[in-house]
Amino acid sequence: MENERPLILISNDDGFMAKGINELVKYVRPLGDIVVMAPDSPRSGMACAITADRPVKYTLMKKEPGLAVYKCSGTPADCIKLAKYAVLDRQPDLVIGGINHGDNAAVNVHYSGTMGVVIEGCLSGVPSIGFSICDHNHDADFEPTADIIRSITQKVIDNGLPKGICLNVNFPLCPEIKGVKICRQTVGQWTHEWARRSHPNGSEYFWLTGDFENHEPDEEDTDNWALNHDYAAITPTKVDVTAYEVMDQLKAWNL
Amino acid sequence: MENERPLILISNDDGFMAKGINELVKYVRPLGDIVVMAPDSPRSGMACAITADRPVKYTLMKKEPGLAVYKCSGTPADCIKLAKYAVLDRQPDLVIGGINHGDNAAVNVHYSGTMGVVIEGCLSGVPSIGFSICDHNHDADFEPTADIIRSITQKVIDNGLPKGICLNVNFPLCPEIKGVKICRQTVGQWTHEWARRSHPNGSEYFWLTGDFENHEPDEEDTDNWALNHDYAAITPTKVDVTAYEVMDQLKAWNL
Repeated sequence: MENERPLILISNDDGFMAKGINELVKYVRPLGDIVVMAPDSPRSGMACAITADRPVKYTLMKKEPGLAVYKCSGTPADCIKLAKYAVLDRQPDLVIGGINHGDNAAVNVHYSGTMGVVIEGCLSGVPSIGFSICDHNHDADFEPTADIIRSITQKVIDNGLPKGICLNVNFPLCPEIKGVKICRQTVGQWTHEWARRSHPNGSEYFWLTGDFENHEPDEEDTDNWALNHDYAAITPTKVDVTAYEVMDQLKAWNL
Repeated sequence: MENERPLILISNDDGFMAKGINELVKYVRPLGDIVVMAPDSPRSGMACAITADRPVKYTLMKKEPGLAVYKCSGTPADCIKLAKYAVLDRQPDLVIGGINHGDNAAVNVHYSGTMGVVIEGCLSGVPSIGFSICDHNHDADFEPTADIIRSITQKVIDNGLPKGICLNVNFPLCPEIKGVKICRQTVGQWTHEWARRSHPNGSEYFWLTGDFENHEPDEEDTDNWALNHDYAAITPTKVDVTAYEVMDQLKAWNL
C-alpha cells in the first residue's frame, strides 16, 4: 500500500524555488513519499513567526508519484500548520526543514525560519530535523551533505526522536566533511548589527548585518567548533525552554 | 547623576500605541529611566523574527525627562537590536516586553513577538522580562497586574538574572490575582488551527485560529495551571535550547 512508505513533510525559509530545498528533496526521495509546502518567496529570519493578521493561501506547483510541491503565502511555521490541515491525509512521519542557505548554529536557532519549521513539527508531535549549510550562495554545492542527510533521515525514520526534541543539523562549507559531531549550542552573540544609510531626503535607515562573536571558540563540544573544523554538527534541540535550574532560586524571592 | 538610575528598554509586539505597553511604562517609570522602541503597528506572532530583506527605520514620538518613546518599522526583536545600536548611550540594565494583550504561556513562548523582545534582550546579555495577560481585548484592564509587575521588576533590578535566563510572566484574567507561582512551561499543542474561507473567484484561503489543548491540565507546577487558578505564572526561560539529555543516545547512533 502506498501509505506504508514514510510520509515526509518538507519546508524551508528560502522559498520553494531555492536550490537547498530542491536538493534536499532529491536526497531523501528514496526514503519516503514527499510533500513540500514552502514559502512562495524568501522568509529568512522569520523564526517561528505565524501569520495572524491576514489570510494564508497555498497553490499546488507539481504533482508526480511520491512527490507533491506546494507554495504558500505564509511563514515557514504556517507552511507546516497548513500542510497538515489542508493537504495531508495523515500525520507525517517526519518534518524536515532546509537545506538552509546559511548556518543555524549557536544563537541562530532563535532567528531561523528553517528551525521554525522544525520547532513547529516538533511541537505538533512529529520527529523533525533541520538541515543548514554554512554557505549563503544561492548556488551553494550541497552534494557533500547528501550521504549524511540520507543517513540521519533514515536513522530518525527508524528510531524516532524523544518527545519534544528535534535535531538542528549544520554542515560546514568544505569539499569533504570529516564526520558528524553531536554538539551543544555555542554561547555567543551578534555584534555590529546595523549598517546606517541616508535617504536622499536626509532621513536615516538601517540594514541588519553583523558579526557573530563566539564566546567559547575552543570548546570542542559546541556546534560552531564542529563547523569550524569541517565536521557536521547535530545539536539536539528542545521545545521545553523552562530553566528548571533556577526555579528554587526564584521561589526564594518570595514574590 | 542621571545615569545612575536604571536604564529600562521596553518593547512589545502589539505596537507602541497599544494600551499594554503604555500601562507598563506607567507602572515601571518610578523604577528607572525608560526608553521605549516598539513596532509602529501590531506584530503579533512574530516570535524572534528579524528583518533581513529591507531596511528598518525609527522615529522619535515623545521625549520628556526619564522617558523617550520611539516607533520602529521592524520586528519586536529588531526594536531591541536597533535601540541598542542607534538610540541608547549605554547598555540597558533591563529589557522588558509587554504587557502583551494575550497570554504567552505554554508553547506560545515560541510564537510570541513579546517573548522575541525578551529572548533578544537575554541573548544580548541584559536581564529581560516579558509580561502578558490572558486578555486580547484592546482595552484590557491591566491595573490588577501593576503591583506584581513593579515588584518583579524591582527584584530583577536588584538581583539580576542568571546568564542566559529570562522571565516569561503571564497574568490571569481576573479582578484579584491570588499570588505568584514559579512554573514550568505547560506541555500541549494548538489544534483546529485554520478556518477555511472562499474568495468570490472560487479560490480558498485560510485564517489562523485554533484551540490550545493542554496535555497536563492537572499539573500544578505548570504555567497554565497557575493561570487557570488565578495566579500569576513566572516561567524562567532559557536561550540555550540544547537537549543535553539525549546527547549520549544520539552518539550511540554512530552516524
